[in-house]
Amino acid sequence: MISHKRNPPIGSSPGTFAIPAASPKPVITLIDYNADGMVERVIDDPSEIPPYLDTESVTWVDVEGMGDEALIRRVGEIFGLHPLALADAVNIPQRPKADLYDTFQLIITRLARINPHDADVETEQVGIFLGKHFVLTIQERSGDVFDPVRARLRAGAAALLKGGPDYLVYALVDTVVDGYFPVLEQLGEYLEGVEQHVFEQPHPSQLRDIYHGRRQLLELRRAIWPQREAINSMYRDDDNPFVSDHVRMYLRDVYDHTVQIIDMTETYRDLASNLMDIYLSAVGQRTNEVMKVLTVMSSIFIPLTFIAGVYGMNFDYMPELREPLGYFICLLFMAIVAGVELAYFRRKGWLGSTRRSDHQAGAAHRTREH
Amino acid sequence: MISHKRNPPIGSSPGTFAIPAASPKPVITLIDYNADGMVERVIDDPSEIPPYLDTESVTWVDVEGMGDEALIRRVGEIFGLHPLALADAVNIPQRPKADLYDTFQLIITRLARINPHDADVETEQVGIFLGKHFVLTIQERSGDVFDPVRARLRAGAAALLKGGPDYLVYALVDTVVDGYFPVLEQLGEYLEGVEQHVFEQPHPSQLRDIYHGRRQLLELRRAIWPQREAINSMYRDDDNPFVSDHVRMYLRDVYDHTVQIIDMTETYRDLASNLMDIYLSAVGQRTNEVMKVLTVMSSIFIPLTFIAGVYGMNFDYMPELREPLGYFICLLFMAIVAGVELAYFRRKGWLGSTRRSDHQAGAAHRTREH
Amino acid sequence: MISHKRNPPIGSSPGTFAIPAASPKPVITLIDYNADGMVERVIDDPSEIPPYLDTESVTWVDVEGMGDEALIRRVGEIFGLHPLALADAVNIPQRPKADLYDTFQLIITRLARINPHDADVETEQVGIFLGKHFVLTIQERSGDVFDPVRARLRAGAAALLKGGPDYLVYALVDTVVDGYFPVLEQLGEYLEGVEQHVFEQPHPSQLRDIYHGRRQLLELRRAIWPQREAINSMYRDDDNPFVSDHVRMYLRDVYDHTVQIIDMTETYRDLASNLMDIYLSAVGQRTNEVMKVLTVMSSIFIPLTFIAGVYGMNFDYMPELREPLGYFICLLFMAIVAGVELAYFRRKGWLGSTRRSDHQAGAAHRTREH
Amino acid sequence: MISHKRNPPIGSSPGTFAIPAASPKPVITLIDYNADGMVERVIDDPSEIPPYLDTESVTWVDVEGMGDEALIRRVGEIFGLHPLALADAVNIPQRPKADLYDTFQLIITRLARINPHDADVETEQVGIFLGKHFVLTIQERSGDVFDPVRARLRAGAAALLKGGPDYLVYALVDTVVDGYFPVLEQLGEYLEGVEQHVFEQPHPSQLRDIYHGRRQLLELRRAIWPQREAINSMYRDDDNPFVSDHVRMYLRDVYDHTVQIIDMTETYRDLASNLMDIYLSAVGQRTNEVMKVLTVMSSIFIPLTFIAGVYGMNFDYMPELREPLGYFICLLFMAIVAGVELAYFRRKGWLGSTRRSDHQAGAAHRTREH
Amino acid sequence: MISHKRNPPIGSSPGTFAIPAASPKPVITLIDYNADGMVERVIDDPSEIPPYLDTESVTWVDVEGMGDEALIRRVGEIFGLHPLALADAVNIPQRPKADLYDTFQLIITRLARINPHDADVETEQVGIFLGKHFVLTIQERSGDVFDPVRARLRAGAAALLKGGPDYLVYALVDTVVDGYFPVLEQLGEYLEGVEQHVFEQPHPSQLRDIYHGRRQLLELRRAIWPQREAINSMYRDDDNPFVSDHVRMYLRDVYDHTVQIIDMTETYRDLASNLMDIYLSAVGQRTNEVMKVLTVMSSIFIPLTFIAGVYGMNFDYMPELREPLGYFICLLFMAIVAGVELAYFRRKGWLGSTRRSDHQAGAAHRTREH
Repeated sequence: MISHKRNPPIGSSPGTFAIPAASPKPVITLIDYNADGMVERVIDDPSEIPPYLDTESVTWVDVEGMGDEALIRRVGEIFGLHPLALADAVNIPQRPKADLYDTFQLIITRLARINPHDADVETEQVGIFLGKHFVLTIQERSGDVFDPVRARLRAGAAALLKGGPDYLVYALVDTVVDGYFPVLEQLGEYLEGVEQHVFEQPHPSQLRDIYHGRRQLLELRRAIWPQREAINSMYRDDDNPFVSDHVRMYLRDVYDHTVQIIDMTETYRDLASNLMDIYLSAVGQRTNEVMKVLTVMSSIFIPLTFIAGVYGMNFDYMPELREPLGYFICLLFMAIVAGVELAYFRRKGWLGSTRRSDHQAGAAHRTREH
Repeated sequence: MISHKRNPPIGSSPGTFAIPAASPKPVITLIDYNADGMVERVIDDPSEIPPYLDTESVTWVDVEGMGDEALIRRVGEIFGLHPLALADAVNIPQRPKADLYDTFQLIITRLARINPHDADVETEQVGIFLGKHFVLTIQERSGDVFDPVRARLRAGAAALLKGGPDYLVYALVDTVVDGYFPVLEQLGEYLEGVEQHVFEQPHPSQLRDIYHGRRQLLELRRAIWPQREAINSMYRDDDNPFVSDHVRMYLRDVYDHTVQIIDMTETYRDLASNLMDIYLSAVGQRTNEVMKVLTVMSSIFIPLTFIAGVYGMNFDYMPELREPLGYFICLLFMAIVAGVELAYFRRKGWLGSTRRSDHQAGAAHRTREH
Repeated sequence: MISHKRNPPIGSSPGTFAIPAASPKPVITLIDYNADGMVERVIDDPSEIPPYLDTESVTWVDVEGMGDEALIRRVGEIFGLHPLALADAVNIPQRPKADLYDTFQLIITRLARINPHDADVETEQVGIFLGKHFVLTIQERSGDVFDPVRARLRAGAAALLKGGPDYLVYALVDTVVDGYFPVLEQLGEYLEGVEQHVFEQPHPSQLRDIYHGRRQLLELRRAIWPQREAINSMYRDDDNPFVSDHVRMYLRDVYDHTVQIIDMTETYRDLASNLMDIYLSAVGQRTNEVMKVLTVMSSIFIPLTFIAGVYGMNFDYMPELREPLGYFICLLFMAIVAGVELAYFRRKGWLGSTRRSDHQAGAAHRTREH
Repeated sequence: MISHKRNPPIGSSPGTFAIPAASPKPVITLIDYNADGMVERVIDDPSEIPPYLDTESVTWVDVEGMGDEALIRRVGEIFGLHPLALADAVNIPQRPKADLYDTFQLIITRLARINPHDADVETEQVGIFLGKHFVLTIQERSGDVFDPVRARLRAGAAALLKGGPDYLVYALVDTVVDGYFPVLEQLGEYLEGVEQHVFEQPHPSQLRDIYHGRRQLLELRRAIWPQREAINSMYRDDDNPFVSDHVRMYLRDVYDHTVQIIDMTETYRDLASNLMDIYLSAVGQRTNEVMKVLTVMSSIFIPLTFIAGVYGMNFDYMPELREPLGYFICLLFMAIVAGVELAYFRRKGWLGSTRRSDHQAGAAHRTREH
Repeated sequence: MISHKRNPPIGSSPGTFAIPAASPKPVITLIDYNADGMVERVIDDPSEIPPYLDTESVTWVDVEGMGDEALIRRVGEIFGLHPLALADAVNIPQRPKADLYDTFQLIITRLARINPHDADVETEQVGIFLGKHFVLTIQERSGDVFDPVRARLRAGAAALLKGGPDYLVYALVDTVVDGYFPVLEQLGEYLEGVEQHVFEQPHPSQLRDIYHGRRQLLELRRAIWPQREAINSMYRDDDNPFVSDHVRMYLRDVYDHTVQIIDMTETYRDLASNLMDIYLSAVGQRTNEVMKVLTVMSSIFIPLTFIAGVYGMNFDYMPELREPLGYFICLLFMAIVAGVELAYFRRKGWLGSTRRSDHQAGAAHRTREH
């Protein structure tokens, strides 16, 4: 689950691509719009793009999949992208960031979602290039993450159609960032489930659950922290020629969301770490309880067994054995010894405590059956 | 207890509302005042508000409950609020912050109080809009948190009536922040109670108590930290057109209170974490004590039982069994073995230590009965 | 021991007093001095103060005790103090700080001392107002903390008499800050005592001792950190009209002392936390040792007892029982079994380790008897 | 493995060399190139270098090995290096840094690689001097780390040949930094291997493995953090006369890589620390399980043995012994006692839990056999 | 070992001396040099100093020991030192710092060395005053720490003789800072020794060793951190009239060394803390192993003993006892019970694990005997 960097070979030229082998063939979708309306089409050949770029309208080209280096490079040339910037977008995983170039702004973001198969958090890189009149998005895999934005465009949402490419980028980044909330909610529920079990019935499998949750949170944290920095740098920089003051205010809102996500992530991390403590101490407590039972049983019966052993000896001359009431006196003596010990353990609270926690376990049982 | 973000659907337009379903219908109260006096009335229709806004007097509109999106939007239009700002105020939970817009200042604060039913800390969002001549407050639920301020207005408190809307906002924020002190005091008493019990009689239920306390503190910390930043940004920013220099000094005082609250929260967190250590070591100590009893009992009686077992064997020729004093010599020998072992354990301090801690437990008992 | 904030009721006007009920009636002492000499008298009525304020000489008014709100308010009016500032000085506990007002500088400091009755650290608030020609100090309780400064004034110390009110404030703050050193020294000795005991003979009562030490350090830390900030802000601010450049150099010295105190506090905290680790591991080690004794004893005698049990069985036909040397062979066999086990445990180092630590405990005993 | 500083003797003049004794004799390679092509030769005598330095072409002198102080000093004189800078390059280990001198820029970097013999991380210092027309690299040992760059030069890579010495330095530093990725990948795989084992079958040897991994990460962290600072200072400083704006953009890319490496290092450190927790709790859990088996066995059989002991006593008058069915009633009673205890333990979940974890261990077994 | 501040009495005048009682009588050495040569003499009376101060040559006065307040004050007057600065130099311990005064620069540094008697780290304060033409050093005790510098002066080292007093101060501070490297090396070797032992044979005495190492590192850290700040402030401050640009570059080098020392200290602290974890878990592991032996032994023999006990009962009618082969069938049954249990424990890995770690302990034994 730890993402390994599959970098280009060490010492290779800057701008070398290292596209993951599993990345599918690119599918290119073009949307061109202005306040009057929009055109949407799937592009087979990048050479269909330039005519759209020459107009004043906003051109959004979405590339899903990276499995064709030559195609990607041609797209990059059409948009006039710096080779380093293009390499950043396709070399996965890249740390999220916002880099300003002369003719465009590069934003590397990272989606988070729950993998429906194994319920694990998985992240996916999305590169966004923002130019004066265009937006280019490059996604690792084909997916439907930007569908809500497309739907709003198709529905003729005025704010989007009238907004420039920077407003579109805001809408895309907002979509990416808001995608963290349901992931965090699910993790929160997961942890609360574990929490309830840890208190009710500590079990080694919970250790694995807590560890699993911590790893997921680590993953999320690694993805969201640099995005906060990236968005912050975009909305703080007054001189950025690609972001208007109007959109800057919206970016502040996205920034607030990243801060809130970080907040929640840290709170959950704190919780998971507390849970670990609880689990450990619950195990220690259980050991203690087990010990008490052993000690009480042993301490009571070992001396009694010794007494029985004494009168089981075969010495010729053992006067007690001849006593008519010897056996009953012996049993009485044993009962007294056991009684004294029981009283001692009760005073120490070892019997009571065991009983109380027993009662508790029973209560926990009832709760689980609800 | 972990607050989940119930955000609008991902990818929806900015400014979409996501009002919690449980939020009650809004009740709108309007207070209009200047140095000469005040008017207070409950408003049924937002259209009653504009006449008050056109005057120089301070108009404070308090909306309690959010369960009517259309109504809230109409109020927002009357005050000329940016859709993002309005959405921040009603989309719960929002991270506390202070955002400056062209025609108003938005402050998101978060109340803390002890829920009287389960004695848990609960927080509630309050959005405050501060304009040139108005203050608009939007509360999640209806409550009486601002009643002391209203009472001071009704009582004709000169400082409030003569102060502008910024002074009113100061009074409201001050009320919100000061509400953390009794919550912290109660948590402090709670922890001191747990502390006393942990030392006297460590019990698994205390684990849950400490964990509970830590979660409450985590909750408080998440609420108060961003408020410190928000208030700081308001009192530091000399160019803020909505806050006068006069009120800035009062905001510094509120800022000092948030710092003091954070201080106390961190101190309590430190204490709770120390308590956890104490609990864990107390459990370890108890295990140790239980072990000692078991070891002393077993080590003394197991060898004795072995001796008894030897003389319980049925070999035909066992000379000792025929000795007239054999039985008594055997008992004497057992007594010597037990005595040597007792001396050994006493020298190791295992008997003494047990006794001392026993004495301690007794002392603890007495203390609890006071 | 955790100081609770006993704030004025929530939502009350700014400047409301919340004087602790236990605070004694104020005793007001006035000292007026210049390079030529000094006058010292106890004031019964605040109206006696103004004549002194009108002169160029330095007027130091010391109010000990706060148990008379009207009196304190009158003193505040005489010195022209802002109500918020005066409330900060009497509302206890306030976080130490240095606030600059138009006509005076407010400094909230916090004394630390060892309570002679229970040897606990206790802190006490002192509010200092520094004006152009006056110094006003308000203390929670009557005490003799400023006596050395008064003594130096009486003795005609030139530096004090010739220095302005800012030099007097420096002398007072220096006295407050230097009071932390003996407290820290005592805590250091306390911790070293605990350290020695933990190594010699870990005992549950040490847990309480360490916890106690940590709380005291937490208390000290909460008091000294904000004082560092406060003094720093005073000596850094070149524009502060109440502090001359001459005195600024002395304040740097006080600042260095606060940094040194924080340093020591953090070092002691580190030590106390290490001690906790040591204690915990010592307990674990002891459990281990106890276990070894139990295991060695049980593992040796339980099999032997079993053998004895076998030959105690009453089967009609057990050939060994009839052997003339059966008993002795049986004993020999038992000795061999015991010997093999002893050798095994010795090879595992369980016997040696026990002995070594036994020796250690003995050495510790000797050390304690010195 | 902890690198010790083998500094020159204390108090010796600045610029004193302290070359590690093991460092081999220097081998000097010179590459001189411009857009038109390149010359490459091995240099025997430093006096062959100056003619190349006088031209406008880029001269790259690579010194591998430091085992000849006089030679190194002569090279330093030829390039006009400050004695302190030269000493920094050869006194090993030096903390990575970027120092700007009047006539050159000194960069101390640190390679990381996996030692093929013991699979440990090892780091090696490389000093880089960047002048107006030259690059001088000094390596601790001879190695092939810069071969890819040399190969690109030989292959006539236009970007390199046309770029100035600053572009060459970028290529070298990029090579050094990218070398951390495979090291981290290998460490990541190592930790994942340990992780799997810890969950399946905790064993003391894993402790050593985790500790080993943590030390390697500590080593990497110490090496990469200062390099981030160094590269940052180079790309941020607009006034640096040795780095063109063109190359500055490339340095930003290298900087991003260092940040990504630090990110991964910290994530792995977090993982390793979590693993430690898991291991510790797994051991605690195992102890708990062992205890349960002991307790169940002892608690069931010790009372039964006592009963058997009672009827093994030799009292003359023990009525039960005479009962014809006494023996069978006694056995039945024993069975009931055992049954009650078993039911008690089952209710406590001690039998179930043991079985469940047993099942788990079995599952783990199967996984390992895959 | 924790250094206590033995401050002047609280509230005493600034500049009061609090010289440690153990400090020896001062020995004053004067060295006066310029590019042409040097004069060195021991001074009996401070009045011999002024003639040297009046010349342009560099005058270095070294005062070793502080046990004569009047003498020190006279020296201070001759050099025109501010009383606060002089007090800082002799009041021990002072936090290292660099304070700029009008006519001189005060530098408080702190030597570290290994005490040859108890192998503990000990630190010693050195105060350095740097004026336009003089350097005054005040040492707590007489020592030979500056001998290498003196030797270089005597040997006519051109850099020193031609450098101004700031270069001499650089040489002195460099000597002080470089003295930390051998101390750290020794601590590193110490920790590696402990590390090896912890893995081989955990023993309670190692706890004390680790704790000891941590305290030493705490001590070093407290001494070196403020020196980094002090040196940093001196080399950053362009306006400092006492430090030339030439020497500033050398100070950067010393600064780099302090950073490297801090780096090493933190790495060692990390290591020591990891070692603690290792030790604790090794103890837990050992307890686990001991438990296994006990459990295996008890679980096997306790049921067997019970069986033996059953057939040792004296019931009149026990049919098995009459069987001719009863005894042998009974023995066989016992063997089967023991065999089943052994198989169970082997499947649980308790026998194997014990054996493996036994093997390991043996391996460790061999390693130690090397």
